[in-house]
Amino acid sequence: MLYKKMNKQKLELLLKSVKSGKASIDEAMARLKSLPFEDLGHSRVDHHRSLRKGFPEVIWGEGKTIEQILSIMKGLKEKGQNILITRLEEKKAKTIKRVFLKSRYYPLSKVLTYHTHPVKLEGKGTILVITAGTTDIPVAEEAAVTAEIMGNRVETLYDVGVAGIHRLLSQKKRLDEARVLVVVAGMEGALPSVVGGLVDKPVIAVPTSVGYGASFGGITALLAMLNSCASGIGVVNINNGFGAGYMASLINRL
Amino acid sequence: MLYKKMNKQKLELLLKSVKSGKASIDEAMARLKSLPFEDLGHSRVDHHRSLRKGFPEVIWGEGKTIEQILSIMKGLKEKGQNILITRLEEKKAKTIKRVFLKSRYYPLSKVLTYHTHPVKLEGKGTILVITAGTTDIPVAEEAAVTAEIMGNRVETLYDVGVAGIHRLLSQKKRLDEARVLVVVAGMEGALPSVVGGLVDKPVIAVPTSVGYGASFGGITALLAMLNSCASGIGVVNINNGFGAGYMASLINRL
Amino acid sequence: MLYKKMNKQKLELLLKSVKSGKASIDEAMARLKSLPFEDLGHSRVDHHRSLRKGFPEVIWGEGKTIEQILSIMKGLKEKGQNILITRLEEKKAKTIKRVFLKSRYYPLSKVLTYHTHPVKLEGKGTILVITAGTTDIPVAEEAAVTAEIMGNRVETLYDVGVAGIHRLLSQKKRLDEARVLVVVAGMEGALPSVVGGLVDKPVIAVPTSVGYGASFGGITALLAMLNSCASGIGVVNINNGFGAGYMASLINRL
Amino acid sequence: MLYKKMNKQKLELLLKSVKSGKASIDEAMARLKSLPFEDLGHSRVDHHRSLRKGFPEVIWGEGKTIEQILSIMKGLKEKGQNILITRLEEKKAKTIKRVFLKSRYYPLSKVLTYHTHPVKLEGKGTILVITAGTTDIPVAEEAAVTAEIMGNRVETLYDVGVAGIHRLLSQKKRLDEARVLVVVAGMEGALPSVVGGLVDKPVIAVPTSVGYGASFGGITALLAMLNSCASGIGVVNINNGFGAGYMASLINRL
Amino acid sequence: MLYKKMNKQKLELLLKSVKSGKASIDEAMARLKSLPFEDLGHSRVDHHRSLRKGFPEVIWGEGKTIEQILSIMKGLKEKGQNILITRLEEKKAKTIKRVFLKSRYYPLSKVLTYHTHPVKLEGKGTILVITAGTTDIPVAEEAAVTAEIMGNRVETLYDVGVAGIHRLLSQKKRLDEARVLVVVAGMEGALPSVVGGLVDKPVIAVPTSVGYGASFGGITALLAMLNSCASGIGVVNINNGFGAGYMASLINRL
Amino acid sequence: MLYKKMNKQKLELLLKSVKSGKASIDEAMARLKSLPFEDLGHSRVDHHRSLRKGFPEVIWGEGKTIEQILSIMKGLKEKGQNILITRLEEKKAKTIKRVFLKSRYYPLSKVLTYHTHPVKLEGKGTILVITAGTTDIPVAEEAAVTAEIMGNRVETLYDVGVAGIHRLLSQKKRLDEARVLVVVAGMEGALPSVVGGLVDKPVIAVPTSVGYGASFGGITALLAMLNSCASGIGVVNINNGFGAGYMASLINRL
Amino acid sequence: MLYKKMNKQKLELLLKSVKSGKASIDEAMARLKSLPFEDLGHSRVDHHRSLRKGFPEVIWGEGKTIEQILSIMKGLKEKGQNILITRLEEKKAKTIKRVFLKSRYYPLSKVLTYHTHPVKLEGKGTILVITAGTTDIPVAEEAAVTAEIMGNRVETLYDVGVAGIHRLLSQKKRLDEARVLVVVAGMEGALPSVVGGLVDKPVIAVPTSVGYGASFGGITALLAMLNSCASGIGVVNINNGFGAGYMASLINRL
Amino acid sequence: MLYKKMNKQKLELLLKSVKSGKASIDEAMARLKSLPFEDLGHSRVDHHRSLRKGFPEVIWGEGKTIEQILSIMKGLKEKGQNILITRLEEKKAKTIKRVFLKSRYYPLSKVLTYHTHPVKLEGKGTILVITAGTTDIPVAEEAAVTAEIMGNRVETLYDVGVAGIHRLLSQKKRLDEARVLVVVAGMEGALPSVVGGLVDKPVIAVPTSVGYGASFGGITALLAMLNSCASGIGVVNINNGFGAGYMASLINRL
Repeated sequence: MLYKKMNKQKLELLLKSVKSGKASIDEAMARLKSLPFEDLGHSRVDHHRSLRKGFPEVIWGEGKTIEQILSIMKGLKEKGQNILITRLEEKKAKTIKRVFLKSRYYPLSKVLTYHTHPVKLEGKGTILVITAGTTDIPVAEEAAVTAEIMGNRVETLYDVGVAGIHRLLSQKKRLDEARVLVVVAGMEGALPSVVGGLVDKPVIAVPTSVGYGASFGGITALLAMLNSCASGIGVVNINNGFGAGYMASLINRL
Repeated sequence: MLYKKMNKQKLELLLKSVKSGKASIDEAMARLKSLPFEDLGHSRVDHHRSLRKGFPEVIWGEGKTIEQILSIMKGLKEKGQNILITRLEEKKAKTIKRVFLKSRYYPLSKVLTYHTHPVKLEGKGTILVITAGTTDIPVAEEAAVTAEIMGNRVETLYDVGVAGIHRLLSQKKRLDEARVLVVVAGMEGALPSVVGGLVDKPVIAVPTSVGYGASFGGITALLAMLNSCASGIGVVNINNGFGAGYMASLINRL
Repeated sequence: MLYKKMNKQKLELLLKSVKSGKASIDEAMARLKSLPFEDLGHSRVDHHRSLRKGFPEVIWGEGKTIEQILSIMKGLKEKGQNILITRLEEKKAKTIKRVFLKSRYYPLSKVLTYHTHPVKLEGKGTILVITAGTTDIPVAEEAAVTAEIMGNRVETLYDVGVAGIHRLLSQKKRLDEARVLVVVAGMEGALPSVVGGLVDKPVIAVPTSVGYGASFGGITALLAMLNSCASGIGVVNINNGFGAGYMASLINRL
Repeated sequence: MLYKKMNKQKLELLLKSVKSGKASIDEAMARLKSLPFEDLGHSRVDHHRSLRKGFPEVIWGEGKTIEQILSIMKGLKEKGQNILITRLEEKKAKTIKRVFLKSRYYPLSKVLTYHTHPVKLEGKGTILVITAGTTDIPVAEEAAVTAEIMGNRVETLYDVGVAGIHRLLSQKKRLDEARVLVVVAGMEGALPSVVGGLVDKPVIAVPTSVGYGASFGGITALLAMLNSCASGIGVVNINNGFGAGYMASLINRL
Repeated sequence: MLYKKMNKQKLELLLKSVKSGKASIDEAMARLKSLPFEDLGHSRVDHHRSLRKGFPEVIWGEGKTIEQILSIMKGLKEKGQNILITRLEEKKAKTIKRVFLKSRYYPLSKVLTYHTHPVKLEGKGTILVITAGTTDIPVAEEAAVTAEIMGNRVETLYDVGVAGIHRLLSQKKRLDEARVLVVVAGMEGALPSVVGGLVDKPVIAVPTSVGYGASFGGITALLAMLNSCASGIGVVNINNGFGAGYMASLINRL
Repeated sequence: MLYKKMNKQKLELLLKSVKSGKASIDEAMARLKSLPFEDLGHSRVDHHRSLRKGFPEVIWGEGKTIEQILSIMKGLKEKGQNILITRLEEKKAKTIKRVFLKSRYYPLSKVLTYHTHPVKLEGKGTILVITAGTTDIPVAEEAAVTAEIMGNRVETLYDVGVAGIHRLLSQKKRLDEARVLVVVAGMEGALPSVVGGLVDKPVIAVPTSVGYGASFGGITALLAMLNSCASGIGVVNINNGFGAGYMASLINRL
Repeated sequence: MLYKKMNKQKLELLLKSVKSGKASIDEAMARLKSLPFEDLGHSRVDHHRSLRKGFPEVIWGEGKTIEQILSIMKGLKEKGQNILITRLEEKKAKTIKRVFLKSRYYPLSKVLTYHTHPVKLEGKGTILVITAGTTDIPVAEEAAVTAEIMGNRVETLYDVGVAGIHRLLSQKKRLDEARVLVVVAGMEGALPSVVGGLVDKPVIAVPTSVGYGASFGGITALLAMLNSCASGIGVVNINNGFGAGYMASLINRL
Repeated sequence: MLYKKMNKQKLELLLKSVKSGKASIDEAMARLKSLPFEDLGHSRVDHHRSLRKGFPEVIWGEGKTIEQILSIMKGLKEKGQNILITRLEEKKAKTIKRVFLKSRYYPLSKVLTYHTHPVKLEGKGTILVITAGTTDIPVAEEAAVTAEIMGNRVETLYDVGVAGIHRLLSQKKRLDEARVLVVVAGMEGALPSVVGGLVDKPVIAVPTSVGYGASFGGITALLAMLNSCASGIGVVNINNGFGAGYMASLINRL
């Protein structure tokens, strides 16, 4: 991650220049303001983010035109950053792949990745992504891909919902071996409670909109997870696989 | 249950009188209308209920004055019926016990029972009442007392919530031996899903208002139970132990 | 139902092997874990279910590709099981019928059944499925088909909503003859209360999303059913005809 | 109702004065503005109301001090109007009765009436007030007292909820004889649908907060009534017995 | 309205036959049960309704196939009844018009009417239908057409919302001349409160789904109407123009 | 307002010191950080606020102990600032008045003011505070007192709700003379729409929790105001009289 | 703005005629009633609005046919008014541009403007429109265009959300220079709180429906803004850029 | 933590006994079932938890009698475990302190701790607990005390809400030094978004019920946190300080 070091160096240089008098306060302020993000007209790409958060800007694909996405990608590629686009329609993905040949698209989770350099393993253990049902897999995949491009070993364990509790219990060893667990469930959202009761590691719970009627597009699962009788569970927004993968990555780097 | 037969006989007699011409249609209509309930001014006690539902009117204690309750009890006692009062404040219970000496009050569930004759066992198997936590016990007790006075063998299994799943699994045999299961849970309301996945008997799920914050007084548990990924689960209202006990009794008589 | 017995035998054999020392604990554990479900990559088909619940896995058609469904069906057929698919789009149903010629599709309720052997009557009485209006029929049909393939005699009584109460009352005899009743209603969801007051049998109430405005896609009917002033009513999720048929079947087998 | 005529006369006189030039526009405007309500500092008593709505201002007792209520009552009494106070705590009612000796307080519905002159019968038929249960009676009484002081014959029919439908059907004749029906119900709020299906007269439906858990303080009953499958039903706010009595009175005067 | 009398006569004849012994009780019961509605397989057409409610069954067009609608219409036409179909898609309306040539379709409100005989004026005064905005007109039209076919003089007053209160006040005379008022409004739903304060006639308030954001598809308007500070207002479901027209008609016949 | 100028001067001095080299960057940063607020252990009093917002910190009385409030008041008094405390229980107010003798308490709105110097008129016009009913006055008073201590001429117009629209229209001149209007209403919350349609000045709408049943503690009024068909309306939180007075003050200073 | 003066003159003339006797009261009333709005059949165009609110009627494009819009525009153009159409589909905009050649369409915000005369600067300062993200820009643009056509200098500052707080802080000077601020944000809606804490000018907060899952189409942002811990914030409906621009304009004219 | 090792040893011994044949399968099963928890009649104390989760059972004080709590504490003390009781009323705390002299009660957060042995530092870095306002401190304290007794260095930073963003920014260094951050906020719940944007460590967000009106007892803050535009945030239930402290502890041990 050359870029990251460069940015840190640049910043240190600037501050030293202020100290030594080479740069005036005003100049320093001006450069600091322009440095962190460049104005593309429609959105401020935040290159400083690698300084503050350890990872480049992620592109939220929904509601952006293909032109906007391509211009952001170009900017990020020039900085030598790896790129993650979420909620990207397949049609746009195809256009992107024609320009960024090496990009990879995951149709289930509608995620696209593009690597300018190999991912460096930064996570210290394994992140295990679990789902209650098969229809929860797209959200789980978004979490898994996010965690992978952020430098983690990721494993998955799908379709082990609580109505057939033996399916989960037979995999107890894999639960124990994970350092962070992401548990994805819709409907009654009970799986994180059971998993949280079986392990002594942090659990990120992701409610999904899987279900119908009184599942209210994931609200039931969300509420159930917030009210879990098990401790050690943090909840993210409905279908927010990306957020769960991101949070798990931050934890796994510690 | 002498009363029950008597009522059926009375009705058959009346209908035969109509057929034979002993009673005019108008007389028959008039008697049929007066027979089923007597007017106490404030509430229509429904003695016909034993004909239609196999059990006397239950008294909902909340919002009734002690005078109203006593006058209803007197009417029911005269008919030779066993009595169940739910949601009865302790203070009123004490007054009742002074009049109806043999009545029994359950302070936890605020239920009072009074027997004019021994309960006859009508249920064919055992009803097992399960709770997730200790704070769910009052609701469970309401279910258990209801089922008992309706003529069932009742067993209880308390504090076996999903965050410590081994507590439940170690009691698998008792789950298997029950003919009907009542599962009571607050917070994330996940227990019925797990129980429903372990047995092949009907499960009555009772959400409780146990919890805080986003448990919304039991709504989260209610929604979770309605969205259970396990099949064979029927849900009753929040804290409705009586309703669950009643439903379980109807099933256990089959 | 040959398969069911086979599985029980297999399990007993395995446990005896453990007892006799023919199989080590580890082997036993390994076999027990692999036995209950086979991994199709996308979903774990739970053949053990027939052991635990008395019925093979039901396929939830929504969100599954035609390839996934066909591969699951093939697996189930090989085990000699009858198959029920719910929430299946007509287009997919047509493809399936080309492969599984004897399958039957119900376009109203979007249910498909496939029989590898005749259904054995397991229910002891009749399940009566009632609707308030004609638009509730698809949900009722899902309940009826489910109950039938689970081995029950099923009768239906449609369009007898409470605004024309005489329509229901004129069918009082049929209500009395049923052993379990499934009552399906949208809008104000009042029908289960009236039916529940007329019979002394368990009632499964199914709210439907029929209605508009403040019916909120079935929430009003759902709430009304949960708050029924009649006792002996268990409620399932909105439009969950399958769940109601399943619950009714479990009860009718008792 | 002398006052009513006086006001109309005054207004006509004023308008004629304007026409004849006796009063200037400005004078007319000024008098018109002062005429309709007098300023008591805290609330504008609207004597004009009898002109516009056919009935004097009703006093909403909640949140008003005893001094405020007494000063408003004094003003109304001087105008020779009959008075209706709703939502009045018993303690305040006692103080009022010491000053307005002939006033009558209804502790159940917390309504107080004071007559300066006998009520003149203005309603053309009978208003029938029906409740589902005994706990709905306070709200029903508020409706009944309101309708009576507005000049109507009022009859009541209490505790005829839908779970014992025969209780209602046996009173079919009374339903048919009413000109307007007010139907009061909590819990699942189904009674107006059944009543609305039995009569061809307007039905005012009043949801009450009777119930618990998922009755949500009357919301369930309110929603059920709004979604009634019967036609000819208008709904008022939860527990708004006054509003129902008022609406029924306006209709019964036609 | 020949049909109506016929039915009454038939019923009286039947009852007299019972009295005179010409018909047995069982025959009477059997005929009574079959008389009121005929079974079309999918829905029970309720011809008795004209007896009970003074108007034939209305057809709810939504969710019914064109075949179902045509078969119901045929049945109703044979009985000599006027027909009202609501929520009918334009495409289906065109097909119907090819069969029932004299039918009239209102594309704005998606209502279709068919007259077998001229409407007889049954309402005693004028029903005034008012809207807050122009986008509320479709719902208002449904109310107006319903009231007309039920035998009322109907007038309309559109686009007089509260943000330009002078538009309404300049029409005060028309408000005063109406016997019943239907007030249709979306957004903040304030118009019924203002109208209700200006007249002394019953007001039927109809919330519409006009609005966006926090109007929640009409819930805001619905709540506002239920909480109106004006008295004499009855509320119907969101967009329920038919219900309002029906209720207004029942009132106007008194 | 001596303090305000002092602070500005201090800040300018500090920045000049930085420029001239008298103060090092670190010193400047340190002083800047300590200057704006002093740490009382439990809360950070923000004296800088007068610089940023033109008014000292307001004390939210709810949930603070009398000791905490007194220590904050002491700190503010020493800085020579006028003080406003909102949501203060009467009991605490009495204790405060014993220490801060000149403080004034408004029991209706539970507001306390303390002046260290006379309020300087900063608002350019009149702020008119309007209520729909008398029960809305406490919230209105909170707005009025806030606006007064922030340097505005404030007038009030109470009890002019929309059900008696003439009460409002007769005061049209006062509406026109105001520069900013605060409109306070509960129940259906319609008043801001009507007022907003009558004036061409900004309107701050304040929903109150006045009402019952489906008013949901002010939610109905809040939603109605957000959906107003009149333009030029900004809404604050339920019962937030302070926020409305504050916003009106900011506008009136422009 | 010639038209505005004309209207005022016309009104004064009319009133003088009344005073001098040239016009009778009835004539005056009649003319006053017809003057303010003309009836196009479908909607009452309110030309009086320029008198009362300082701006011509804005056309809400949604749900209006192209014919309706064109006829309204024609009426407004003849009066010499500038025109603003909101929520206008692109397809309709194209048709309009063929008739009103000089009209300008903003595809992002779906707003169309048409000038009959140059906009006169009426606002005294600058209105700054800020967004949290790029997806909030359409709503912001609606606010900006509205404020511009109402005679204001408008500046924009986009994509400065709170997760990268330095982006906002680096623009502190622009915040300070604005006289009124419009802050547009979706998701957690936190930006107005931060901005409100940085400036001493009124802030209009606009929640947007940007987000997913538990953002509930903008409700979360709306609630957050209503509960802002910063003072001086008025909130408008979700996505109501027009309302915010209008409110800001009213303030900026003061 | 002697107990922890003992339990592990016991378990290993048992399994070895099974392997060596010293214990039969049935014996092993029986012992395994009895070992993990002892039955106190009302609740199953889960000593096995230290094996599975690394920390003894925490006692939820609410709804438990003082006798129940004391008997649980006695059981835990005998096992040599440290004890944490949450949601404990002050009155009960006083009784406990008379029995467990060395226990410490935190009246603000209603937490009680009792140490049988000194806490061993298990967390690798510092957990920083931040609040937006002073009224959020009780919830923050619950988090802090929980984290401390679970073996962490804990620091606090209170009253740094977003309306005075400089208060937070001036403490940037402390944010950077923390390994895990717990951010507690009520009202609009914006603080976690700002903090999450400033650090690259996991943030646990805790909504509190601080606020009024549309804060809905913490729902607004909860929703805002779930919709945060910053990544790396996990949310717990409203007021769930304990849950946040627990989750932070699990992370800090990694």
